Amino acid sequence: MHFSFNITAPDQGLAAALQDKIDRKTKPLGALGQLETIARKVGLIQQRLDPEFDQPHLLVFAGDHGAAKAGVSAYPQEVTWQMVENFLDGGAAINVFARHNGIFLAIIDAGVAHDFGKRNRLIHAKVAPGTANYIEQPAMTMDQCARAIERGAEISRNLAANNCSLVGFGEMGIGNTASAALLTHCLTGAPLVDCIGRGAGLDDAGLARKRALLERALTRYRGTGGNDDPLQVLAEFGGFEIAMMVGAMLAAAEARMTLLIDGFIVGSAALIAARMAPALLDYCIFCHRSAEPGHAAQLRALGVEPLLDLGLRLGEGTGAALAWPLVRAAAGFLNEMASFASAGVSERS
Amino acid sequence: MHFSFNITAPDQGLAAALQDKIDRKTKPLGALGQLETIARKVGLIQQRLDPEFDQPHLLVFAGDHGAAKAGVSAYPQEVTWQMVENFLDGGAAINVFARHNGIFLAIIDAGVAHDFGKRNRLIHAKVAPGTANYIEQPAMTMDQCARAIERGAEISRNLAANNCSLVGFGEMGIGNTASAALLTHCLTGAPLVDCIGRGAGLDDAGLARKRALLERALTRYRGTGGNDDPLQVLAEFGGFEIAMMVGAMLAAAEARMTLLIDGFIVGSAALIAARMAPALLDYCIFCHRSAEPGHAAQLRALGVEPLLDLGLRLGEGTGAALAWPLVRAAAGFLNEMASFASAGVSERS
Repeated sequence: MHFSFNITAPDQGLAAALQDKIDRKTKPLGALGQLETIARKVGLIQQRLDPEFDQPHLLVFAGDHGAAKAGVSAYPQEVTWQMVENFLDGGAAINVFARHNGIFLAIIDAGVAHDFGKRNRLIHAKVAPGTANYIEQPAMTMDQCARAIERGAEISRNLAANNCSLVGFGEMGIGNTASAALLTHCLTGAPLVDCIGRGAGLDDAGLARKRALLERALTRYRGTGGNDDPLQVLAEFGGFEIAMMVGAMLAAAEARMTLLIDGFIVGSAALIAARMAPALLDYCIFCHRSAEPGHAAQLRALGVEPLLDLGLRLGEGTGAALAWPLVRAAAGFLNEMASFASAGVSERS
Repeated sequence: MHFSFNITAPDQGLAAALQDKIDRKTKPLGALGQLETIARKVGLIQQRLDPEFDQPHLLVFAGDHGAAKAGVSAYPQEVTWQMVENFLDGGAAINVFARHNGIFLAIIDAGVAHDFGKRNRLIHAKVAPGTANYIEQPAMTMDQCARAIERGAEISRNLAANNCSLVGFGEMGIGNTASAALLTHCLTGAPLVDCIGRGAGLDDAGLARKRALLERALTRYRGTGGNDDPLQVLAEFGGFEIAMMVGAMLAAAEARMTLLIDGFIVGSAALIAARMAPALLDYCIFCHRSAEPGHAAQLRALGVEPLLDLGLRLGEGTGAALAWPLVRAAAGFLNEMASFASAGVSERS
């Protein structure tokens, strides 16, 4: 499997001019904290002193996991397709937040075990109706993994062709915190037990069962624990929604979009994509710190600090949709604030 | 000086019904973290299962400080009125964030040393053109303090009469981190040195000077350090913008509005108002953790955790304007999300 995404770090030539523009704004130097960091980042991504976010989109990738039926989740597998229906009806948390904050929402069937038929607002990209149970065998073939990545890339390329300059990522898939836990362990080397949480709400017995099942999955697979080949690990333990996000992220960064990374599941896709193309991180804004414990290992491995820390653990891209107004505000102050000179405000004594 | 604000804790009778409504939403129990806490809080404030924020306003109170001329700030005093002009022209950070996030902005001249004349969007409530220099004498008389509180209260009552149900607080006043540092020390008992920061950007020498000046102000005043009478302390070291916010907060809580508390300066007003009427806190949402070090002492004393932690130290209510979409999202999910039953989604196995 070979992919050629041409992702390079943004040219830094504009950095000094961006900093100068920020520092002339009517505010104490550095007083907007992390918003100033974001303003510099998006200015460099777009290579503009006045970055703008056209057609901002949030993509929610849905997929089913064979391991869900083995008991890694508190919820039955059919909740995946039922929640997709809820997204299409506008009743989920992500619908509310996207609506309030003005970001377009698109739902992608990456591999749900359900036939939705033709539907408005649903992008059909199903690789298969759910992955295989990775406790017994690889979740997907390398060919399926490649197809998922390609289809994800195509979605981002279509957005780019329509002038979209910012894309947020979200997901739905019963069992996918288990998948993300395995990916996080294999790619960061953090102990598996530290990567496993209660997901959508396992009780103590459920958590113990999840741990035992994932340990079993690991014994089947012989990785190196921390430096494994990202695509190999993805095919072994991933979900179609995760693999498709990997492709969508790589193509979005290649198209020099700004990427909003949600929490633990989306983070596992970012971990893989960044392993394939480290410059991807220059295009990513990490939106929130998930309450799911494995997220800390991801953030540590990537060396990033997220914007929000609200105890969220819902997924769907809700953290990205909630952080979006902060990112918009960062570009907003850069574009719209007066300078000391233009406003006639005295500078420091 | 006697005020009678009738502020009582919201009736808790609706708490169980609110929790039940939250728990029936199509999401794992508790998965929206702090947004669920806010949803419960605003439901109780409004005594509704479907709280709504009508006419949300952000009030920016501006005032000058006699001590500014003694050298407690990196900026000259005229920046206060120049920034008010900037607010009126729409060029400051708070204008940008209020515009982007859909919250009405009103600017109040609480005591700026400048004559603005008749202006649109400026509420004239000037008590005096700046406070006295508290290093030498009390910042204001008890009568001035009472007038500032009364005028602030009147502003909130006018908003309430126009169906406003949410009010955010912001401020502008060169030198007012020094004032807030003294108030914070006197009301929390935290060591003065821990309450003093660089404000708008003092260098090391400036910080040392600010510390020495504030120590001197304290030696003039004989407080008890932690349990002082809040109005006495306010008159001694406050600013007119701070005193007016105290009145506006008390009247807003009395009118059962939701209050958005910004950072360090606004926090010092909240500290005083909460000392006068502890139930005020039931109406407050603390929006962000300021980078100004004294803010930590306030948050500790009040026993609260703010929503955002972005290294902001700008004031103007910017933290409140940036947190507003999160508060709106909290009411939004409560009002607009589907329930498991209404969406036909299966519950936990």
